[in-house]
Amino acid sequence: MRPIRFPLIDRRFLLASLATLPLLSASYRFASAQTPSDPLPSWNEGATKASILNFVARVTTQGGPEFVPVDRRIATFDNDGTLWVEQPMYVQLAFVLDRVKAMAPTHPEWKTKQPFAAVLDGDLKALAASGEKGLVELVAVTHAGMTTVEFEKITSDWLASTRDHRFKRPYTELVYQPMLELLTYLRASGFKTFITSGGGIEFMRPWTERIYGIPPEQVVGSSIKTRFEMRDGTPVLFRLPQINFIDDKAGKPVGINEYIGRRPIAAFGNSDGDLEMLQWTTLGASGARFGLIVHHTDAEREYAYDRHSHFGELDVALDAAAVNKWTVVDMKKDWKRIFAFE
Amino acid sequence: MRPIRFPLIDRRFLLASLATLPLLSASYRFASAQTPSDPLPSWNEGATKASILNFVARVTTQGGPEFVPVDRRIATFDNDGTLWVEQPMYVQLAFVLDRVKAMAPTHPEWKTKQPFAAVLDGDLKALAASGEKGLVELVAVTHAGMTTVEFEKITSDWLASTRDHRFKRPYTELVYQPMLELLTYLRASGFKTFITSGGGIEFMRPWTERIYGIPPEQVVGSSIKTRFEMRDGTPVLFRLPQINFIDDKAGKPVGINEYIGRRPIAAFGNSDGDLEMLQWTTLGASGARFGLIVHHTDAEREYAYDRHSHFGELDVALDAAAVNKWTVVDMKKDWKRIFAFE
Repeated sequence: MRPIRFPLIDRRFLLASLATLPLLSASYRFASAQTPSDPLPSWNEGATKASILNFVARVTTQGGPEFVPVDRRIATFDNDGTLWVEQPMYVQLAFVLDRVKAMAPTHPEWKTKQPFAAVLDGDLKALAASGEKGLVELVAVTHAGMTTVEFEKITSDWLASTRDHRFKRPYTELVYQPMLELLTYLRASGFKTFITSGGGIEFMRPWTERIYGIPPEQVVGSSIKTRFEMRDGTPVLFRLPQINFIDDKAGKPVGINEYIGRRPIAAFGNSDGDLEMLQWTTLGASGARFGLIVHHTDAEREYAYDRHSHFGELDVALDAAAVNKWTVVDMKKDWKRIFAFE
Repeated sequence: MRPIRFPLIDRRFLLASLATLPLLSASYRFASAQTPSDPLPSWNEGATKASILNFVARVTTQGGPEFVPVDRRIATFDNDGTLWVEQPMYVQLAFVLDRVKAMAPTHPEWKTKQPFAAVLDGDLKALAASGEKGLVELVAVTHAGMTTVEFEKITSDWLASTRDHRFKRPYTELVYQPMLELLTYLRASGFKTFITSGGGIEFMRPWTERIYGIPPEQVVGSSIKTRFEMRDGTPVLFRLPQINFIDDKAGKPVGINEYIGRRPIAAFGNSDGDLEMLQWTTLGASGARFGLIVHHTDAEREYAYDRHSHFGELDVALDAAAVNKWTVVDMKKDWKRIFAFE
């Protein structure tokens, strides 16, 4: 029996904002310094690694039948569970819960008001019972009601001071070394790499460049609405408690079209939230295409979960991977190393 | 007395989509081939040109007090009236009117139904009388109800076959040569150049790279909503008759924040629709900032209009330019040449 049952749709409501001083760029630099002989040293030899190298060779071989010009080499990456850890809960949800606690002293009414009381009491069952409506309320008070600059400061301070309970590390160190190498390898092969995450766009942007080498303008994610205001001659963008865009499931191809405006030739995900992005990238289009799913199979070094997980559920997309010949990474078998700090 | 009075807010409803085979890249290549001694040969010497050169020198001088690292050199450009002609009406509005005529044979009911009858009869007064509601109806039938791929084909065919009445040229040749040189100069100086237009994002993206050197993922604009669908195993994005985002006036800083995620250090516009973008770029921020407004003052070579124009009204922003020390281009005086074909 599971003690916590977050509604599976909760991902749709984990919106976001500006955030976080980057804490670790060492792992990225490390990846950049690999010898050209093996661009993916943290990947074990085998069919998975070979499928990546083979795809990149095909699309980059000038004069070859599947050559793709540089400006069409677009690759999109999910974030939670694909580039960094999403267990025991999405990092952004951990932020929401911590933020409610931090704000509680100025909101005495929360002690008896749900879903706030559930958060303050650590009663995750009651929190889950508050459902989508509760989650939207939590996002509204923690993500809206301030300027974009203020929100960036709040999330930056939180990410700089918070440690994951299991690994005792900042969340920005819980990024997958093999995926960092893959990002670097693709860019070295002329790809433009994008993040297409269900997570909040402004929660990711302040640190993605240093951690992943992906600049803010190449980050697509969920968002709330903002309003432009002149305050005593100074322009600000004020964050409103209204959903603007949910970059998950069928929203991912929509977001790719809206923010990037080109169809990717390679997409990387780990959950059912990435199914439509993988379909949009690989099906019904001419030329070489590549889809990859990170399957979390290593409970010892990281986590093992798929069809029945509260976060990062991988069920329909796992079946679709077999049908559509998407590469499925078996983390335990395919990854020599998971984190840079190992 | 003006024969046509489009509601000034109509711009808010000229949404968009995928469009247009690029027709002319010669002018862009021409600009790229300038000698380094004068990166802006189509600009006459004077305070305007000097202000541009001076700003770029200040932010690119390593070790200088106003040096800006390359990754922060973000420049945003309005499109209609700033990079290409917007008179006697927005190009996209010309597309809407032509498209209604092309679709009319399969819509016999339009002969007696407004606002369609007004378009078919060329009765622009009746069209204007239909107001925003009429314009939204026209955009809905011309911009929605097809896939993104189909819409790109429609607009591409239209742009390839349509000529401007006055200049007898494809619209993609009616781009300002001095601005093409400016785009090239900024990129050569380490800037990343973006379009931030009130026009439709998918109306611009198919040709901006060849004409302006700006790739699709660096184009921000207005949009309608799309829906992802699997049709017989093939993924499509279907265009819906619902407004998604209006990238005009106070929407421009919102769009810049959402799509780019960084604050520009230079912004270029020509109308009141660009006021908030110029404020967001230049006010209340530390470091060197640059704002520029193209003032259309040359009725002989192009058009002369400002405070009372139906399209590209420049009134409040012109007053703000004086207060905020934004550079105002006097087209007649400052531009040696307006079009590449002159």
